[in-house]
This record gives sequence, structure tokens and C-alpha cells, in this order.
Amino acid sequence: MHKRLSLDEYRDGILAGNRVILSRAITLIESHLPQDKTLAQNLVEQLLPNTGNSIRIGITGVPGVGKSTFIEAFGKSITAENRKIAVLAIDPTSQITKGSIMGDKTRMEELAHNPLAYIRPTPAGDSLGGVANKTRETILLCEAAGFEIIIVETVGVGQSETLVKSMVDFFLLLMLAGAGDELQGIKRGIIEMADAIAITKADGNNLQASKNARLEYLHALHLYPSGINNWQTPVMTCSAINNKGINEIWETIQSYIKKMKLSGFLEQNRQQQNIEWLYTFIRQTLENDFFNNSVVIEKFAGIKEKISSGKMLPIHGAKELLKYAKSAD
Amino acid sequence: MHKRLSLDEYRDGILAGNRVILSRAITLIESHLPQDKTLAQNLVEQLLPNTGNSIRIGITGVPGVGKSTFIEAFGKSITAENRKIAVLAIDPTSQITKGSIMGDKTRMEELAHNPLAYIRPTPAGDSLGGVANKTRETILLCEAAGFEIIIVETVGVGQSETLVKSMVDFFLLLMLAGAGDELQGIKRGIIEMADAIAITKADGNNLQASKNARLEYLHALHLYPSGINNWQTPVMTCSAINNKGINEIWETIQSYIKKMKLSGFLEQNRQQQNIEWLYTFIRQTLENDFFNNSVVIEKFAGIKEKISSGKMLPIHGAKELLKYAKSAD
Repeated sequence: MHKRLSLDEYRDGILAGNRVILSRAITLIESHLPQDKTLAQNLVEQLLPNTGNSIRIGITGVPGVGKSTFIEAFGKSITAENRKIAVLAIDPTSQITKGSIMGDKTRMEELAHNPLAYIRPTPAGDSLGGVANKTRETILLCEAAGFEIIIVETVGVGQSETLVKSMVDFFLLLMLAGAGDELQGIKRGIIEMADAIAITKADGNNLQASKNARLEYLHALHLYPSGINNWQTPVMTCSAINNKGINEIWETIQSYIKKMKLSGFLEQNRQQQNIEWLYTFIRQTLENDFFNNSVVIEKFAGIKEKISSGKMLPIHGAKELLKYAKSAD
Repeated sequence: MHKRLSLDEYRDGILAGNRVILSRAITLIESHLPQDKTLAQNLVEQLLPNTGNSIRIGITGVPGVGKSTFIEAFGKSITAENRKIAVLAIDPTSQITKGSIMGDKTRMEELAHNPLAYIRPTPAGDSLGGVANKTRETILLCEAAGFEIIIVETVGVGQSETLVKSMVDFFLLLMLAGAGDELQGIKRGIIEMADAIAITKADGNNLQASKNARLEYLHALHLYPSGINNWQTPVMTCSAINNKGINEIWETIQSYIKKMKLSGFLEQNRQQQNIEWLYTFIRQTLENDFFNNSVVIEKFAGIKEKISSGKMLPIHGAKELLKYAKSAD
């Protein structure tokens, strides 16, 4: 493991756009050592005045939707404009496999070798909430390092979408034209979170099916009211291999950002995300402290069993556990 | 205020179906006095073996959808079969007005005077989570008192639907045929929670619009996969004033219950609801203790302000508050 740098060295390196130092600072954020955590927090806080200048985009979709191919093509659109893009990932499956969807950097080979792009694998071996906190701080570091577009990628299989939504300005849902039930495989509620839907792989034999899927989604979305930001979610088609529709998606995102900056929604949304982050972290800590309490752990299974079998009222069980936790403090 | 009865008097009265004693026991549940709470909890726990035998139905819909008219007609269907029905309410608006959607009992005048029916207004002046806990316990008391069908009514304006969903076997969403956007006014996500949708006021000039709305919803729902219970949400039309479609809805609910009993889903769902209740109550208590801590209250606004204005990292603010709370314990 590398020797730690000083706070000043990290800060100056990041502000100079030094990506080696950026990577080492992110490693600091991901560390479980208390002294690393303190240093990381001080670093991020010192850099706060240099953050906030990027467009934060969340991208999700089921495995097989062609996320990395899409992001590679999307990233090329952006770097072609001479703008810097960072790609981060929140991967719930990495909790189990200790691997990472982004671990194999060859997945986005071209983008990975582009000097305007920075790709960072997801940290493994952490709770989803823990990963989310680290990703939030990593976004800030990338912004301080001068990245203008930040992608947070997630696999569409669980709660990770809600977390990603809570840290980005724009949430893009990638969908695949399928036979029959178009929304299969996507957890209920995710559709409604999207700021845009893109049907991927709209090419070759799949072109007509993609166009049909687009109409289906448009129709379904039409039934929902637009949110407080007064934005009607567009549904688009694209083909990464033919490089069709990618620029249009990027333009849509830019027009969204422009509109939301003007209306004040962008800033308001970010402030609210920060306050949400405060509450979430407090809740996480309170619950972690409680459920990691050794007496609570010891008593939990027995109480759960009594509740499941209808012998104990849940409130009674909760009060007992809370009493145990308090006395063990 | 009435003098309190003994635990045995409450218990025997409820088991005998004495509705005066039932009402007084519910008042006990709603009380904020610690000794009342303890007595109430002991009472509910003693009655646990006599609970669980009802069909628990959640009903929601925006104001104007005709909820009370529907429930009155629905209740008549049930009492006509000589079965006992209780109607409870979770009303988020009562937090503000200290009034109650159910306070005016004349709203369901016929049902209110039917000896087989029991209508209980929502408790006021409590947090939504607090109301939910009390409603959960009230359901159990009503079951012990021999009610076979229990309706939990809610106004479709917030988080109350999720809470109601977490305590019932069947969740019925009432909708109004409108011009244009059929889902207007209904919070995103509620549609997907429904086990059935009923378009109300399908009569007179509104009949054709209701039929059209039904098709719209069917189409929209068709796009969603059926849940783990393998149930495809039906969309029905009804008219309370013409007494059309009400019996069909009741039959649908009964067929759902029969199917879910057979598959084991009903029992499994209730066990999971109980475990959720345990977790929810623990979380509520941890958070309440934290946010009601006097030092936390004193420091909170200042920290929130620093975070909002981008001067402090949310995690930093959270840690400070957690430290204050701990030292003040």
C-alpha cells in the first residue's frame, strides 16, 4: 500500500487535476481505517468550494441492456467536445462477490485510455449505504479535479437506483425492447424516477421493436403527471454500435440542466440531496450502532421467533431490544 | 374521562364483543400516558391468540373519489351476509387540523347505525408513524372483538398509503374517471401497490368515461409484472349509488384471500408485516430519541444552514450531532 500523502499534497494534486493523486485520495475515502476516514473527510471538506460544477448523471438498466457499450459511446461524445468525464459505479452485487462490475477496466477499453476520461471501479466489501456515502464523496473529489461530467452507473437490481437518484442531477434509465411485457425485470417505481428513458440496441433486426417499445413507454409515462420540476420524461432510442441517438441523449441532458439551472430547481435539488444525506447518515449510524450492539445481536433471533409465531407483539419485542441496547451502552 | 378498567375487564369485554369496552380499550391505545400505554400493550398481547381471523382491507383514493359512499355501500354488502365489519382510518391531514376525516360519523350514517358495523375515527395529534402503530393495535383489538372484515381507510395524499399497505391483506385503490391524465393526483408508486383498482361513480353521464378509464388502467398495469404473489391486479368499475359492481369487488377480495391462504402468501405476508413493524418501531424510537434530544435540537438549525450553503459536508454535520446526542445521554 502507498504511503499516505499530507492533506496539502492531496488537495494541491487534485486541484491540479493529477489523476494519480485523485485515485489515491479515493482510496483514502474507501479505507476503513479511522485515521484515513478523518483525513479523507477533512480533504473533501477543504475542497468543497471547488465542487458542484459538474453535471451529475445517474445511469441504470438491467444486465444485458448494454450499459458499458452505451457509456463508452456516450463518453466519446463528451470527450469529442474536449470535456472531461468521470465514470463511477454503485454495484450492489459486489457486496457478495467482492468483485465489481467495473473491476474489469477493459469493459470500456477505449474510454479507459482516453486522457479526458477517468473510470473508477466500485469499492467492494461494504454495505450499500456505505458505498453510497463513498460515492458521494468521490463525486466531490472528481469535481475538484476538474471533471465536468460525472456518471454514476448502477445495476438495475435493487435499492441502488434510489441511492443513485439521491446523488445526481439527471437519472437516465436504459431499457431493452423485449417481446411482450416491456417493463419486465425493472423494479416497480424505477420508471417513475427516470428523467429520460433510452431504448438501447435500436439497430438491425431490433430497430422496429425498439420504436414500438418507445411508443409503449411514452404512453405509459403519459399517464403519470410530470414532477415538481415540470419536466416530461422523454423516451428515446439509440444504438451504441451505430452511434445513433447518443448525441441526442446528451443534448437532452444539457437542455434539462439548462432549464433546471434557470428555474433554480438544480440548486434546490442539490441542497435537498445534501440535507437528505445528513439525515441518511444519522439514521445509518443510529441503526448500525443498535444492530451491532452485542446484546441486541444475542437476543434478536429469539424475539423475532416469538413475533413470527404470534406470541409477542412487535412493539413489545422492540421495546425489549431497545432496553437491552441502552443498558449495554 | 372514564375511569380505567382492569386488564381482565377489558379483555373479557372485548372477547364478549362488547363495543363500549372495545371503544374504551382503543382510547387506551391512543392515550399518551405511560401507564395507559403499558396497560394497552399488555391487553393487546393477551389477546394475540384471538387475533388474525379477519380480512384486513386497505382502501385509499383522492378526496372526491367517493370513499365514504363506497365504504358505506361495501359495508352494506358485508353486513347483508350477517358478517361484522370495522372501519378504521389513517388520516395524515388530521395531524394539522386536529380534526378527522372520520370525525363526522354522519358521513356513513347508515353503516354507523348498523349493529354489525363499527366505525372508529382516526386518532389526532400524533405523528403518522404513531397513528400507524395505534391502528395496527386497534386492528388486533377489533379482531379479538369478533370483527371479520376490517377496513383501514386513508386519504391518498402522502405516505399514509405505504403504511396502510404494510398492515393489510388487500389494498384497494379507488379512482375517478377524469378527462385526460387518468393518474393525476395519485402519487407515483401507489398504482403499483394496489391489489385491485376500482373506478368509482361509474353511473349516468360518467359511465362511458369510467369504462374508458378502466381500459387505460388495465393497459398501464399490463406493463407491470405481477408481484411475488402471482396476482394480476384487476381493474373494475362500480357505482355506489346504483349499487353496481360493489358485490363483484367484495367477491374479488374474497377470491384473493382464498388463493393467498392456499398458497401460504397471506400468512407469510402477515409475518413479514410483523417483522417490518418491529424494525419500524425500533427505527422510530431511535430517531425520536435522537431528534428530541435537547442538545441536538439546539445545534440542528446551525448545522443544517452550514450544509445548505455548502460550507460543511453532510457527514461532518451528522457526526457532530451524533457526538452531541451521545454526550447528552
